[in-house]
Amino acid sequence: MLNEFELIRRFFSRPPADGTVRLGVGDDAAAVTPTPGHELLLAIDTMVEGRHFFADAPPATLGHKILAVNLSDMAAMGAVPRWALLSGTLPDSDPGWLTAFSEGLFALADRHDVSLIGGDTVRGPRSFTVAIAGEAPAGEALTRAGARPDDDVWVSGTLGDAALALAAMQGQITLAPAALTALRVRLEMPEPRVALGLKLRRLAHAALDVSDGLIGDLGHILNASGVGADIELSRLPCPSALKALLNGAERPLALRCLLAGGDDYELCFTAPPAARVMLLMLSDKLDLPLTRIGVITATPGLTVFDEQHLPLPALPAAYNHFPNGSRS
Amino acid sequence: MLNEFELIRRFFSRPPADGTVRLGVGDDAAAVTPTPGHELLLAIDTMVEGRHFFADAPPATLGHKILAVNLSDMAAMGAVPRWALLSGTLPDSDPGWLTAFSEGLFALADRHDVSLIGGDTVRGPRSFTVAIAGEAPAGEALTRAGARPDDDVWVSGTLGDAALALAAMQGQITLAPAALTALRVRLEMPEPRVALGLKLRRLAHAALDVSDGLIGDLGHILNASGVGADIELSRLPCPSALKALLNGAERPLALRCLLAGGDDYELCFTAPPAARVMLLMLSDKLDLPLTRIGVITATPGLTVFDEQHLPLPALPAAYNHFPNGSRS
Repeated sequence: MLNEFELIRRFFSRPPADGTVRLGVGDDAAAVTPTPGHELLLAIDTMVEGRHFFADAPPATLGHKILAVNLSDMAAMGAVPRWALLSGTLPDSDPGWLTAFSEGLFALADRHDVSLIGGDTVRGPRSFTVAIAGEAPAGEALTRAGARPDDDVWVSGTLGDAALALAAMQGQITLAPAALTALRVRLEMPEPRVALGLKLRRLAHAALDVSDGLIGDLGHILNASGVGADIELSRLPCPSALKALLNGAERPLALRCLLAGGDDYELCFTAPPAARVMLLMLSDKLDLPLTRIGVITATPGLTVFDEQHLPLPALPAAYNHFPNGSRS
Repeated sequence: MLNEFELIRRFFSRPPADGTVRLGVGDDAAAVTPTPGHELLLAIDTMVEGRHFFADAPPATLGHKILAVNLSDMAAMGAVPRWALLSGTLPDSDPGWLTAFSEGLFALADRHDVSLIGGDTVRGPRSFTVAIAGEAPAGEALTRAGARPDDDVWVSGTLGDAALALAAMQGQITLAPAALTALRVRLEMPEPRVALGLKLRRLAHAALDVSDGLIGDLGHILNASGVGADIELSRLPCPSALKALLNGAERPLALRCLLAGGDDYELCFTAPPAARVMLLMLSDKLDLPLTRIGVITATPGLTVFDEQHLPLPALPAAYNHFPNGSRS
């Protein structure tokens, strides 16, 4: 029988990735050495079975994704991710499942030199929480509050991939097998844009990661910055399968995926027009599309213009974890 | 309808407790300023309904306890708790429930000048995770690895209270109503020994908090330090209701509560005999019993001597979150 301590030791104890870790897994807390002159960035994210992933999801993808969504928060702040803590709630202690999960998690952690320094393992309905700590030079982290009128609005990669995959997996739409396979990777193994976030520290005025859908997330930037934005639908970068749907009977679903689909974990940011050349060079260097999708306005409010340059009359709502929540 | 963002804002956004917080709840990550020359201590703990608390537990006690168990980890390290992140998985967004929960959490946070700087709220089976960050002067944090032969073994407060309350609430034993009420407070509103932990930095060789039961937790110190211990049952501080049971038919249950009961969140630590006077003065100053319960031995292994100074033939097992886990 594997008890809790053996579980943690066996699957989640690894030599720390760097010399900043004095104590890792195995004491009441981990002890690490912060970099002098840097701020500490802290975030936490949870994934719950049936809500954020299917019960039969490959465990390696879950290990990847729970860390990826936290790395994405660090990317959005322009922070170097350093140390992670994992809390896993598990219905059982199946060694095969845990091996695959931890391999998925560590493969991503290793690529970003992130040390898993602590954890907690409890029994219950399957869910995972990662808390992450990163660093940025004091005062240089990117926030949501710095957008200024006439800034360009940019996004990395493509939008709507994950939501479209989910719609197909739920039977709302049929996609060609090859297209679905590619989109599923985007849903299950999102790539946190850490390298981009670090470079944006000196270029962007405001940034966040698109985890709940462009409309809702860009709305956070607009609210925090006290500005508005005009976005052009035709400029939004999206996978070809989604583009095809936009011109057909499934346009409402395609719009929902593109404008309100969560889980892509691309960065949305604003930057002055003077940064355009630098950003396109950066796009080339990172081999990651960076697309200008609109402009920040002094007048609050978000308007999305369609292909005929008419404002969309209604915007799909942002992803809401509590769609049936009680009234306030 | 309260959406996720309104939920977080409404119940968990408070002005930060101190000037170290540049960004609190409301961005992709919080930004805080570490104290120069200090190490960062990081821990995470989860509580799951049905496993760590009953479905009808008063929400204010849950808010208290999920923070308390994390503060207790900081206490065990001799760290000053500074910043906390909360992830709540909730079946609904009942404002009354959330108000009480957040009041319980903030009341404890305020007493320890801890800032809640971030969070995540998702829908699912009720559980809570807190990640906590604290600080200690570099290299001074208490670990489990420093116990030396001839050290005294000490515990704070009393042991077995929480386990005895749980046994009574589960109908395994009947207690006088007044006794149960007092013990229930210990189970539901444990008091993290933060002030004690800070003072132990200069006095103790090794320390941890008793969350899974004395035998198992002291065993961690012994393993990490490569030593053994002789403990005297008659010296173990316990509530009078438990002491009475030790001398009767319920002795097995009483022993289990005392030696393997979790959830008391007292500190167990080792210190050289030369520290005895200082520790008794500290006990007096903190108005917290500190009791010498045994001695560290050079020979590995843990022996508990009974009232006749005979070794207990079998020690109750430590609390295990996976009692039915699969075999390795």
